[in-house]
Amino acid sequence: MSFNTFGKLFRFTTWGESHGPALGCVVDGCPPNIPLKDTDIQKELNRRKPGQSKFVTQRKESDTVHILSGVFEGKTTGTPISLVIYNEDQKSKDYGDIKDKFRPGHADFTYFKKYGIRDYRGGGRSSARETAARVAVGAIARKVLEQKLGKKFNIVGAVTQVGPVFSNPENWDDKQISKNPFFAADKDVVSIYEHYLMDIRKSGSSCGAMIELRARGIPVGLGAPIYSKLDADIAAGLMSINAVKSVNIGAGSEVASLSGELNSDEMRASGKQVKFKSNKAGGILGGISSGQEIICSFAVKPTSSILNTRETVNKKGKNTKISVRGRHDPCVGIRAVPIGEAMLACILLDHYLMHKAQCGK
Amino acid sequence: MSFNTFGKLFRFTTWGESHGPALGCVVDGCPPNIPLKDTDIQKELNRRKPGQSKFVTQRKESDTVHILSGVFEGKTTGTPISLVIYNEDQKSKDYGDIKDKFRPGHADFTYFKKYGIRDYRGGGRSSARETAARVAVGAIARKVLEQKLGKKFNIVGAVTQVGPVFSNPENWDDKQISKNPFFAADKDVVSIYEHYLMDIRKSGSSCGAMIELRARGIPVGLGAPIYSKLDADIAAGLMSINAVKSVNIGAGSEVASLSGELNSDEMRASGKQVKFKSNKAGGILGGISSGQEIICSFAVKPTSSILNTRETVNKKGKNTKISVRGRHDPCVGIRAVPIGEAMLACILLDHYLMHKAQCGK
Amino acid sequence: MSFNTFGKLFRFTTWGESHGPALGCVVDGCPPNIPLKDTDIQKELNRRKPGQSKFVTQRKESDTVHILSGVFEGKTTGTPISLVIYNEDQKSKDYGDIKDKFRPGHADFTYFKKYGIRDYRGGGRSSARETAARVAVGAIARKVLEQKLGKKFNIVGAVTQVGPVFSNPENWDDKQISKNPFFAADKDVVSIYEHYLMDIRKSGSSCGAMIELRARGIPVGLGAPIYSKLDADIAAGLMSINAVKSVNIGAGSEVASLSGELNSDEMRASGKQVKFKSNKAGGILGGISSGQEIICSFAVKPTSSILNTRETVNKKGKNTKISVRGRHDPCVGIRAVPIGEAMLACILLDHYLMHKAQCGK
Amino acid sequence: MSFNTFGKLFRFTTWGESHGPALGCVVDGCPPNIPLKDTDIQKELNRRKPGQSKFVTQRKESDTVHILSGVFEGKTTGTPISLVIYNEDQKSKDYGDIKDKFRPGHADFTYFKKYGIRDYRGGGRSSARETAARVAVGAIARKVLEQKLGKKFNIVGAVTQVGPVFSNPENWDDKQISKNPFFAADKDVVSIYEHYLMDIRKSGSSCGAMIELRARGIPVGLGAPIYSKLDADIAAGLMSINAVKSVNIGAGSEVASLSGELNSDEMRASGKQVKFKSNKAGGILGGISSGQEIICSFAVKPTSSILNTRETVNKKGKNTKISVRGRHDPCVGIRAVPIGEAMLACILLDHYLMHKAQCGK
Repeated sequence: MSFNTFGKLFRFTTWGESHGPALGCVVDGCPPNIPLKDTDIQKELNRRKPGQSKFVTQRKESDTVHILSGVFEGKTTGTPISLVIYNEDQKSKDYGDIKDKFRPGHADFTYFKKYGIRDYRGGGRSSARETAARVAVGAIARKVLEQKLGKKFNIVGAVTQVGPVFSNPENWDDKQISKNPFFAADKDVVSIYEHYLMDIRKSGSSCGAMIELRARGIPVGLGAPIYSKLDADIAAGLMSINAVKSVNIGAGSEVASLSGELNSDEMRASGKQVKFKSNKAGGILGGISSGQEIICSFAVKPTSSILNTRETVNKKGKNTKISVRGRHDPCVGIRAVPIGEAMLACILLDHYLMHKAQCGK
Repeated sequence: MSFNTFGKLFRFTTWGESHGPALGCVVDGCPPNIPLKDTDIQKELNRRKPGQSKFVTQRKESDTVHILSGVFEGKTTGTPISLVIYNEDQKSKDYGDIKDKFRPGHADFTYFKKYGIRDYRGGGRSSARETAARVAVGAIARKVLEQKLGKKFNIVGAVTQVGPVFSNPENWDDKQISKNPFFAADKDVVSIYEHYLMDIRKSGSSCGAMIELRARGIPVGLGAPIYSKLDADIAAGLMSINAVKSVNIGAGSEVASLSGELNSDEMRASGKQVKFKSNKAGGILGGISSGQEIICSFAVKPTSSILNTRETVNKKGKNTKISVRGRHDPCVGIRAVPIGEAMLACILLDHYLMHKAQCGK
Repeated sequence: MSFNTFGKLFRFTTWGESHGPALGCVVDGCPPNIPLKDTDIQKELNRRKPGQSKFVTQRKESDTVHILSGVFEGKTTGTPISLVIYNEDQKSKDYGDIKDKFRPGHADFTYFKKYGIRDYRGGGRSSARETAARVAVGAIARKVLEQKLGKKFNIVGAVTQVGPVFSNPENWDDKQISKNPFFAADKDVVSIYEHYLMDIRKSGSSCGAMIELRARGIPVGLGAPIYSKLDADIAAGLMSINAVKSVNIGAGSEVASLSGELNSDEMRASGKQVKFKSNKAGGILGGISSGQEIICSFAVKPTSSILNTRETVNKKGKNTKISVRGRHDPCVGIRAVPIGEAMLACILLDHYLMHKAQCGK
Repeated sequence: MSFNTFGKLFRFTTWGESHGPALGCVVDGCPPNIPLKDTDIQKELNRRKPGQSKFVTQRKESDTVHILSGVFEGKTTGTPISLVIYNEDQKSKDYGDIKDKFRPGHADFTYFKKYGIRDYRGGGRSSARETAARVAVGAIARKVLEQKLGKKFNIVGAVTQVGPVFSNPENWDDKQISKNPFFAADKDVVSIYEHYLMDIRKSGSSCGAMIELRARGIPVGLGAPIYSKLDADIAAGLMSINAVKSVNIGAGSEVASLSGELNSDEMRASGKQVKFKSNKAGGILGGISSGQEIICSFAVKPTSSILNTRETVNKKGKNTKISVRGRHDPCVGIRAVPIGEAMLACILLDHYLMHKAQCGK
């Protein structure tokens, strides 16, 4: 996990700017002989793709992925998999105001101060467009995990909060998630999300969101204490996603308010298995998976690019104002669902491989 | 950040079990010529040490640190610094119930399943006793940062929530923190914490806590996007602390509820400097420090070792019950303050060095 | 240095197969604001390019490099630099014999056994075509080092042995190297190399070579003991080049025959500088550069693909024979010169950055 | 492989100075449930220990190892193994001349220039005393490999050259190695080594040596191309040993003189196995083990501390002379045998684990 590389044994390195010629990644350490087609990856990219509904950015990108190496005759070879996605909608851009002004809430100011360079083209490397590469890698990680862990394995994510609107955890239904443009698992909340987001967009503002991820079929034993705890790696992976400001495992920040009795999950024998009576831990104890469902969540801040005028400074350090026009998501949290799922898939595969190395037969 | 090693350029590797002969760490990559004495480290260890008040564990450990290498004539040499702390209170222990039963909320079950070994001696490696080593390293990181960043630099932490009791952020006062046994920065909350914790202890239960950390004097530019973002490394570092289930940067999970206007911090020129009008970002934009105060927080779950009887299973997979006697903190979150500070110091130094390498003059 | 990634702070990850659609690399950790053009890279690639003389492979590849990210307005941005080279001569290939037989001396057998896959297309990932990516990265490393170290800095390499023919070290002349197709620094040896190689080619055989590298203008202090010693990293970097079987630093294997007096380089004051009276150490003492010229060498085995018939086995484990036709270098060592230079440049830059991080002002 | 840490999955970090209170290491990533006793490690340390014959240093060190963590009830737990060796003969030392003068051939000058510190106590961190820690780790690696690979596995090393005296490869006999104080595998060379070394010692000089290592019972498939090739890691590991200036795999530098026919090892079916007709490759093809014996060698320079007077400079940059008295090995290469074996064992185990992770069932 250095700079633009994530992972220890299943590692990927992403590259590319929002408005450069292309973006992509190199996936290293993938097990060989895993069936892999462009369409396996494209399917996941399409879930994250811009322009899918009026609630997300209207930037036009087909996000078509090309596999340049590491796959031969339909199977992974164990050598690096290079993926590239050419940017299609980057040419005619008039950067206007953005060129010399630092957009509040964005990385414009810090990138300029760190590197001494102002890549004003849509945020350059700091743009969330980088996350397309993550989703592509995640699709590969899922393929591997499906083969290694079998049918019990899956990862799902859903938006559980949009601004002030909360979904009801009791209503979580996997099947609902793909049936609405908000990745909501609670069908009762869909129309509320919709109205709220319509209003936000009209008002020229934006809102935050909370996303919850669940991974099933994960065996007990994944996680490498002390500093590669499964939850520590999840925290790093999710916090590295653009606009994320909070990561929770299981009951998350709620644990601060709980008593020991309410928090620690009791265990019961169930045939030769051990079952837990609850899952406040989110399926992770001491940094190691317990065999329960892995549950984690992350908060995404509101889109910083808004129509409403804000105060800021320009490259010369002078006071100015800015109103960011263009094709921005009113709630970037929505498209964060497949991104979060992808990161979780990569982390779980990485730990699966590490566990096999150290403790496998 | 692999297994028992944390950091990229300023790296430490910790070792040792709760009830083994000793614990310690090796610190690698420390800049040379930094003045360093045993007492610089001991001072920080004493803040975390057990037995300091009736609100923490009564285990008797002087936690005396010995420097075995890497320091010559009172200065760091640039070679590995080996630190050792001998365990003093580990001999006479009667492990009783713990030996064959898995304590709910602890890593007993997952370590056993992962490694096929039951090190029943107080949790073995999974014990929070490991955090003494982190605090020791943090003391070294602080010494380096003090020399490199000067007097503006400091890191403070405080307990902002104990169970259902919240401190008032408006009342934060650094000077209060060392004046009470709870690391509270709000003096109004001290007696409430005290009464609440007295009750919890008497009732045989335990409670969670929230800790907030603040780092000042951090220059703009620290952080290595994309996967070594400063906030991603903070998330990993804090989540790797025992019992932590949530990490927040700046406004944290609150951002899900905010509008773009309320969340993104506006900027104003202030002489040749840029000032922000607020700090919802917690001093980090796009994974890079903005020059503002770095603010982060983490939630610590209630102590899992409680007197009240819980249901669990034993090593043979049979149902049983457990009541954990002994010298346990009713609220492990309290002693987490110096641990969190230490992790933050290590991460900031690591990023300081990385930034100097890539972008320094 | 994991799998397909090399380096610690200046890191690159290469990808691509000999006869896949493309090959390339991602360079991460490059300092920002370094002037960089396609032609800076192309210049070095052209030195390694096939088809430059009758003494190297006649495969037709322009080896045109494309920069896909990390450079903006002619300067590096500090974000990942993605380079791609499309394979042009990979389509019409008839793999014939190679498809099912393991070529002796090649990685065919071991790749098949390791990965369970037979990528017969010219060796797939194990082909020396991968080294084009290294040369491209090396060109970037040189640009950075030139800017950081100034005009005293340069790296040159030469072929000092071809089969049984040795050049005379006394005759080393940098200016000769580009004047002959063998990268010979000793002009007296050129025609001997030429005649020897003509004979070898006609006889359907091949021969090995020795390459020496020299880096000048390297400051004292680069190298990170104990396990990132400058010479240890050079050894790893050069040994990772296809067909290399030996790496020497300074006097190299000759030291086994020397006495202490002859081996250890005496020092003399020279104004405020320290000068060494000899350079058996190759400019490295205790893993750290001494300020002298860095000298190292590596042996390249003879091309394993030869016309003469050899015994081998096929994929089914049956005995067979093989004669490898096609466009092979009679002496792969010749084109190894720019590759070795590139690796050395990358390693020196990596250590320059590490040294700045830990010990820089 | 960063600074003082070696390895990727089986990793160790060493620490300690020649004349500090202790030296040691932390071994991380060791598989659990491997039987391990102090004596398993001590046995190997005793092979490297000073004072064993008149041909090595007379420094008095029992080199007694203490296991401080990671082993419980006689088995590894999968958590970090901390080993410590207290220095016994470091107290009364009169450093005399060494204190302010840079010994030619040693790291005194480069350490001082790099770190700005002069740790004159016997070379401090740069002393070969560090290698005791490597031998200790190697003993653990052997134990794991013995359990994983079975009885076919072993690693042996021998001194094949002492100054101008070469052993005869045809005479290699494992059983001879422990029967003489020179680790010679050729019994005919023993008395020649002995007389030569007696003379060298009397003359106040020193000599170099060549060591060859052989590993048997290594399965096909270990090695992680491209930059973690098995031979690249061996090159790094052996070159990181004090005083090593050359590393060879199989035929090594001899390959430069060979033809393709003589170099590439032909293959034949042998039942369901594949046998090679020769082993110029040293058991490694394309960076991956071939199932043959792994053969490598390394050259050790003559001891730089010699009685004969040499020219040098002092800390103030003034010309001076030095004659290094004290208890030095006339040929440090002799005690390098167990060190080389240890490094090879660690590298093979590391690759065994990596291979299991990526390609194992």
